[in-house]
Amino acid sequence: MSQIGVKDILGVPGDYNLQLLIQAEKRKDINFVGTRNELNGGYAADGYSRLNGISALLTTYGVGDLSAINAIAGAYAEYVPIVCITGAPPLNSMYRRRFLHHTTAEGNFEDVMSCYRSFTVAQARIAPQNAVEEIDRVLRACVRKKRPVYLQIPSDITFFEIDVYNEKLSLRQQTSDAQQLNAVVACIEEKLAKAQNPSALLGMALDRFGLHDATQSMIENLQIPFATTSAAQCVLDGDHPQWIGGYSGHSSSDLVKAAIEESDCLFGLNVKFTDSNSSYFTQKIPENMIDIRPFRTIIGHQVFEGVSAIELLNRLSEIKPPRKYQNWKPKTAKTGNSWVAKKDEKLIQNRFWERVEKFIKPHDVVVTEAGTSMRGVKILDMPSGITIISQPLWLSIGYSLPALFGSSLAQPDRRQMIFIGDGSFQLTAQEVSSFFEHDLKPIIFLINNRGYTIERAIMGFHAKYNDIPNWNYRQLFDAFSDGKEYFARQVNTEDDLEKALNEAEKVPDQLRLIEIMFDPLDIPKAVQSSANMVAAFNYGPRGLRELDKKIDD
Amino acid sequence: MSQIGVKDILGVPGDYNLQLLIQAEKRKDINFVGTRNELNGGYAADGYSRLNGISALLTTYGVGDLSAINAIAGAYAEYVPIVCITGAPPLNSMYRRRFLHHTTAEGNFEDVMSCYRSFTVAQARIAPQNAVEEIDRVLRACVRKKRPVYLQIPSDITFFEIDVYNEKLSLRQQTSDAQQLNAVVACIEEKLAKAQNPSALLGMALDRFGLHDATQSMIENLQIPFATTSAAQCVLDGDHPQWIGGYSGHSSSDLVKAAIEESDCLFGLNVKFTDSNSSYFTQKIPENMIDIRPFRTIIGHQVFEGVSAIELLNRLSEIKPPRKYQNWKPKTAKTGNSWVAKKDEKLIQNRFWERVEKFIKPHDVVVTEAGTSMRGVKILDMPSGITIISQPLWLSIGYSLPALFGSSLAQPDRRQMIFIGDGSFQLTAQEVSSFFEHDLKPIIFLINNRGYTIERAIMGFHAKYNDIPNWNYRQLFDAFSDGKEYFARQVNTEDDLEKALNEAEKVPDQLRLIEIMFDPLDIPKAVQSSANMVAAFNYGPRGLRELDKKIDD
Repeated sequence: MSQIGVKDILGVPGDYNLQLLIQAEKRKDINFVGTRNELNGGYAADGYSRLNGISALLTTYGVGDLSAINAIAGAYAEYVPIVCITGAPPLNSMYRRRFLHHTTAEGNFEDVMSCYRSFTVAQARIAPQNAVEEIDRVLRACVRKKRPVYLQIPSDITFFEIDVYNEKLSLRQQTSDAQQLNAVVACIEEKLAKAQNPSALLGMALDRFGLHDATQSMIENLQIPFATTSAAQCVLDGDHPQWIGGYSGHSSSDLVKAAIEESDCLFGLNVKFTDSNSSYFTQKIPENMIDIRPFRTIIGHQVFEGVSAIELLNRLSEIKPPRKYQNWKPKTAKTGNSWVAKKDEKLIQNRFWERVEKFIKPHDVVVTEAGTSMRGVKILDMPSGITIISQPLWLSIGYSLPALFGSSLAQPDRRQMIFIGDGSFQLTAQEVSSFFEHDLKPIIFLINNRGYTIERAIMGFHAKYNDIPNWNYRQLFDAFSDGKEYFARQVNTEDDLEKALNEAEKVPDQLRLIEIMFDPLDIPKAVQSSANMVAAFNYGPRGLRELDKKIDD
Repeated sequence: MSQIGVKDILGVPGDYNLQLLIQAEKRKDINFVGTRNELNGGYAADGYSRLNGISALLTTYGVGDLSAINAIAGAYAEYVPIVCITGAPPLNSMYRRRFLHHTTAEGNFEDVMSCYRSFTVAQARIAPQNAVEEIDRVLRACVRKKRPVYLQIPSDITFFEIDVYNEKLSLRQQTSDAQQLNAVVACIEEKLAKAQNPSALLGMALDRFGLHDATQSMIENLQIPFATTSAAQCVLDGDHPQWIGGYSGHSSSDLVKAAIEESDCLFGLNVKFTDSNSSYFTQKIPENMIDIRPFRTIIGHQVFEGVSAIELLNRLSEIKPPRKYQNWKPKTAKTGNSWVAKKDEKLIQNRFWERVEKFIKPHDVVVTEAGTSMRGVKILDMPSGITIISQPLWLSIGYSLPALFGSSLAQPDRRQMIFIGDGSFQLTAQEVSSFFEHDLKPIIFLINNRGYTIERAIMGFHAKYNDIPNWNYRQLFDAFSDGKEYFARQVNTEDDLEKALNEAEKVPDQLRLIEIMFDPLDIPKAVQSSANMVAAFNYGPRGLRELDKKIDD
């Protein structure tokens, strides 16, 4: 675990894992960090891994690992490596199919494993006779595939000291067959030689696969423009001069649409189109896109199997570009953000995000939640060195708060902030106490709009089911603070916001809660139009009729 | 749904289920009740079902149903019927295997279904062409098997109006083959005729299977003593004169051990021995126990397949007992509970539970959480008409608070109370706000002993991993109360407890929080001895050595 970079294990104690914990507590190189529940632990492990490159989650059998599985499925979907360890019942009792607590008491010890098989890339039930090889196999799969893995460690064998007969865990990545690699480079060089307007489109998990630097080198070597899908926001510098904007099918800017859709030599870097990153499959991608995946490149009908993307990108960073590509226009640079608070003006969503843009500084970690927050952050112009943490594909509400706990734990020295709506916040709110417990000081923008505003936009503007209980968030933070000082402001007007942000910057040694009060129906036009797309796709014409009726109400 | 008794649907809205919710909101016979997250929703549905006989949970695809699955697995293990409904992606997009949000974007729409298959007794993905038959099939399985079922309802077909060509949902339970039934009755009569000391042992879910009244009739007709396994506490009246106590293997009382283990005609009513209800498999059950299951009775080598337990029990309630069984002694009646607060005395666990016994009144609902709470309630002498709600087998911490929300919603007119430790409370704490939102008035005994005391007893008395953050619970309730009045007391001494209980009884129109302060290492002897059993079973001799070392510390 240490060798692959795990320093903290997140999770919840339970009777089947206590002996693992006893041992963890005795070690200097591994630290156990309790989370308020297992789902939160899974989310925290996800946030931790996105900054640290890997993370670990410890739960107890059945009740624990099943509570966390939604977080693990999200990490699987979004390529976030997490080593999931469960303290399992004694090996002999599984062998003898005994009726135990935390099981369905039918002698079935495959049910939980079977759930995890769907959402992890390697699994093992450890026994003394397989531990040496299986633990390595599973850890290696986690590192190589950048997705969660699952280890069941029976409680009764955790203390065994056995001979470790294999070598140190090998983490070498496979290199390519030289001929394959040469062939794909040659093919690309040929395309580039003919191309007038090459460009690149950045996809998922480039940082997790260690491809971001090589991608940047290639793009800079070729001097071509690049756009990003939602999962790639800020994976290269947000102010990179060759970045022309986000690509999301028909709702992209004309500049980006032209550069991507009309490119005669488009590099796709681990691009996967989904409903939510393509404005419901409206992407128009040139047929012969150079489709670069971590261990495979496909160009039209040509498949180059086993080509390591890192090697390929390094080669493309070193070739002499066949020509200078002058057909592309850079994004019009904004002339600075000149936001000034309008006196006594009620703050609205659009104005809030404009001011946030000014607040974000190079190297911040920005965590965003599904809903209006994610859409708000997506449109911001970002400085260099920003890391965005969110779940643009799995989109599980409640994810971001525990994820921020994990990311803050992983890199406590970076300024970290979160944008989260009250509807999502309530799902995992107890994790706030972990920030206080571990003296972490993020800035929490809690967007209080009294419910699930994004769902109001989709269906049910005034529907009761989109309301949530009215909490006093200041009191809630008090309850969790254990007497520690923290900064809290409630923002109703533009002046409030300006003041709160300025003051918040002066107390970096405190956790900061900034509660932003919006009207439940303050729905920016872009959010409503994307919500209309969701409704149209999900519910079809009759659903839309119903939606229209509600809009008329 | 209405026909099977579902009045409320618990759950969380999401974009794939909004159109179902729009329709639910328009109906008079079904009411949607939002919970703070899906796991809490699942637990609430479990608590609701244990009082109402059935319940329903609505989630959105992937993120929602996977968040709830631990609660559903618990309901499966403990025979609690819940209709799980998920708003799924549009049917056409599943058919075309599109890459959608809330999926792993690999075109796999079987992964979530496959997880649910492990923990539900029937599943269906609804389409217009199968809806009429599949919905009935799945609902019937839920009612008949008393376990959760799972329906995926694609978002795009929820508004369709189709011809319902079958009859009204038939809920008739299958009756027995007459010859089989006669044979088993004859066999039992023969055993009874020879028996000197018949007795009965009550197992799981007798109330859910509707067997409790018939069981009581049989026991009263035969005038035999009965004992209960942990899942059957109070399923018949706690003060029933024929009840001799709980049976849990070697830790049972001598009276109960003799009556059960030496019985020459033992009736087992849906009995299943697990580690936690048998003091780790120390039960000694006569070989020829009359093992009565809902649709099968086994007596030694004789199997009577398809015998309906309700019919069998009704027959046994009507036979003339072959003789009067006089060999059994009733439980020594307690001479009343004469608890008096010792002045200025720090309250300890043992004394607390003695006072609680006096506090509980006939027809209360008592919800207990895994840990010292469950063990505390288990040993109480109870009056008549009590319902106990807990998870003695699945034992998922955090279960009981949302379960109390569900049970309070199902039967708001009964006095309901909960005993829950702070370690468990923190997992699902946000559900407190639902009590205020719905004006429910339970009594919440929050046992504050600064961590996982039951786990300290198992392993790690002073281990850091058994600590939890220090919350201000009073402030937390304030934050959730939305300004509504409620009653709150903190109890440190015996006097405090006496006063708090007396005052609490005077404000039945308010939610009551009674926070009980115990030392983290206030571990009753019986709890420690059962924790030692857990450690011995889970960790074996080396684990125990480690435990002993900790005890010596």
